[in-house]
Amino acid sequence: MKTKKILLPDNELPRQWYNIVADMPNRPLPLLHPGTKQPVTKELMNRIFVEELVHQEMSTERFIDIPERVQDIYRIWRCTPLVRASELEKALDLPSGIKIYFKNESVSPAGSHKPNSAVPQAYYAAAQGLNRMTTETGGGQWGSAMSMAAEMFGLDLRVYMVKVSYEQKPYRKSMMNTWGADVFPSPSDTTEAGRKILAENPNDGGSLGTAISEAVEMVMTHPDARYCLGSVMNHVILHQTIIGEETLRQMEMTGDYPDVVIGCFGGGSNFGGIAFPFLRENLAKGRKTRLIAAEPTCCPKLTRGKFEYDFGDVAGFTPLIPMFTLGHEFHPADIHAGGLRYHGAGTTASQLYKDGLFEAVDIEQVESLAAGVLFAKTEGIIPAPESTHAIRAAIDEAEKAREAGEDRTIVFNLSGHGVIDLYAYEQYLSGALKNYTLSDAEIAKTVSRLEKLA
Amino acid sequence: MKTKKILLPDNELPRQWYNIVADMPNRPLPLLHPGTKQPVTKELMNRIFVEELVHQEMSTERFIDIPERVQDIYRIWRCTPLVRASELEKALDLPSGIKIYFKNESVSPAGSHKPNSAVPQAYYAAAQGLNRMTTETGGGQWGSAMSMAAEMFGLDLRVYMVKVSYEQKPYRKSMMNTWGADVFPSPSDTTEAGRKILAENPNDGGSLGTAISEAVEMVMTHPDARYCLGSVMNHVILHQTIIGEETLRQMEMTGDYPDVVIGCFGGGSNFGGIAFPFLRENLAKGRKTRLIAAEPTCCPKLTRGKFEYDFGDVAGFTPLIPMFTLGHEFHPADIHAGGLRYHGAGTTASQLYKDGLFEAVDIEQVESLAAGVLFAKTEGIIPAPESTHAIRAAIDEAEKAREAGEDRTIVFNLSGHGVIDLYAYEQYLSGALKNYTLSDAEIAKTVSRLEKLA
Repeated sequence: MKTKKILLPDNELPRQWYNIVADMPNRPLPLLHPGTKQPVTKELMNRIFVEELVHQEMSTERFIDIPERVQDIYRIWRCTPLVRASELEKALDLPSGIKIYFKNESVSPAGSHKPNSAVPQAYYAAAQGLNRMTTETGGGQWGSAMSMAAEMFGLDLRVYMVKVSYEQKPYRKSMMNTWGADVFPSPSDTTEAGRKILAENPNDGGSLGTAISEAVEMVMTHPDARYCLGSVMNHVILHQTIIGEETLRQMEMTGDYPDVVIGCFGGGSNFGGIAFPFLRENLAKGRKTRLIAAEPTCCPKLTRGKFEYDFGDVAGFTPLIPMFTLGHEFHPADIHAGGLRYHGAGTTASQLYKDGLFEAVDIEQVESLAAGVLFAKTEGIIPAPESTHAIRAAIDEAEKAREAGEDRTIVFNLSGHGVIDLYAYEQYLSGALKNYTLSDAEIAKTVSRLEKLA
Repeated sequence: MKTKKILLPDNELPRQWYNIVADMPNRPLPLLHPGTKQPVTKELMNRIFVEELVHQEMSTERFIDIPERVQDIYRIWRCTPLVRASELEKALDLPSGIKIYFKNESVSPAGSHKPNSAVPQAYYAAAQGLNRMTTETGGGQWGSAMSMAAEMFGLDLRVYMVKVSYEQKPYRKSMMNTWGADVFPSPSDTTEAGRKILAENPNDGGSLGTAISEAVEMVMTHPDARYCLGSVMNHVILHQTIIGEETLRQMEMTGDYPDVVIGCFGGGSNFGGIAFPFLRENLAKGRKTRLIAAEPTCCPKLTRGKFEYDFGDVAGFTPLIPMFTLGHEFHPADIHAGGLRYHGAGTTASQLYKDGLFEAVDIEQVESLAAGVLFAKTEGIIPAPESTHAIRAAIDEAEKAREAGEDRTIVFNLSGHGVIDLYAYEQYLSGALKNYTLSDAEIAKTVSRLEKLA
């Protein structure tokens, strides 16, 4: 019998997250206060974020214990399956030495990897005695996950959802409402930042940067509330390393070890989540696994952006963040992979990319959806538009290995399913889907707007 | 550490389906030809269905081997988790002797238990050299599953989808299209049966019975096509017993044995799938597990219907089927649990129910959705409207055990997730959802229309 997938029993689940910061050759640069240009204080951070999360954000400990209660919730769906993509391999007619595995994060109740961080964030907020949180969401995956987690820990949650997504995906709102959250399309009239944008353009479709501005403003004007977010920050990527820790153990059980590990890249959480534990093995044991971030051509912050201090949001409310960025005012095309439409990469990922410790590739929207349809027709699962970027990159790696006449074991992170994003597939099937590749002039224009903020 | 869920490794998955017919105290009555009133011949059945499925339909073998290739596909998502509903138990404040487990069939690529039968049906069709299939779907779960399976085995598929569902759930169509199927709202103008209904009422919202008429007519007029369906028939329930076979092994690993096993009931496939292996244990080993079918109050064929020979479809194209039925012309209210809106129960389930080997309860729509919301807020997973009937019945059983001061281990089948059915949750949350309980007069009227057809 061929083994199709590997699972770990409940009692073998990882009980610690891995903090890549402990092993970085160059530690990430500090976040800076935009006024003083000095590193932001823990006090300011604690005003915005949950205290334990700030602690984790700045931690240099290699391993951090996962609270028992969080493990309880994780076990509803974790360990997620590591699946040999044998049906996809067959469709690609790959030689036996080229193997594709995927880590199936789509089996969580919210349909993506996002609950891995939402659950501990809600847990720590409740432990601090808070009862009110606010966040933003692009494609809706994070907002859904955080709604579920907030409900589980008895927290009120307000979600600012990028307006184009809010309108394209009414079911996302229903999902968040079912879990008890309040959802507002962003830009909204509930904040100064939102009202300002609406005054300039009542039809503004919003962006992740704008939604962050609104969520942060709401927290700054409500002392009992805290802000949380689903990517970019160290503590988020820390929580997501549960993915890679499981994958390491699961790969061991297959007898294979990955030559390549791939994740799509928005702010870095699902990529870092699967890749950083393998990066540790590279650094500590001299392994040579290539780690590949797959970003969309319309928002190529890693491959075509610049490493600079920049704001995390459109309005400039956040600390200054050292990152690969296209500029906080950059407005990416309205591709369906809403979770990848963010102008910058997280600090940790940015530093590691600067230091050459992982690679990045750009993927076109039409080609990524085509890969998603092939995956759906072979492995059955309809992937999230975000995840189709990783699938495309995995197929490209397999094809390159074949051309080179090499064996290759490829693992990619299937970060979520797409059954609430089927509009993207309709568009693809009808031939209406477009590619959005930025010209050199467009890149030069947006990057030239990047001020020396620090 | 508390064990939250149990999984079987790939190499311990059941390799045989269980055929309850072998152990029935009274075998099911034969299907009859409506003209001759004689048992339908294998030849006629072979004209409509795939040959191996007809063979299985009539088989009295106790166990039937699952083909290797079907096992390959099953392993993409199977074994499905058996999860202790500890968070739900906590919310209900149950004493420790009352335990609730659920079998999570929602993790399949199509989001329900339906692929368990769709995959072998497509496999056997391809093995027979067919390349064209047709089917119908109510809520969309079966049509989605069959679209995926047909694509995997290179078959063309045409799906007749009940029009109210087609309009309420556009994503279901997109899903089926993504897997390459053609989808028509039923009644459609592609068949005589459909055109006749549309001529009488152009706004007819359709029913499962009508959709079956259309799908069967299409097969009868296309000699190269065969019809398949997702419930009611013995062979479908046979395939679904993989659920119960896994659950038996998983329960053994928990150290508990179920006092009660619950499934929602449309045609009987997810109920029979989980319950019949436990019924075997009851019959063979004197176990006393109570098996409970949860049906909607608007379509109470088991609790309030009559055991008679009746047609499986509205137009009277099918053989005469011995079943608990409300009459093939009965038109249930447009509840969101589209998969439970069928007028009759499968022959096997009907005979077993007649012989008192399982119980049935009726569940109101609003109460079932309320249970679904509670489940979503505790265990995270948003259940399909169909599955919420099983959840409600499980909660009711737990409450009854508490009132009686008894210990009770309850297992229910979470037949699918509801993230493509979120309209039902919107309606519930807005207070617009209604109950539909049939009055005695309505039941008397529909049952009195039941002719003595055989």
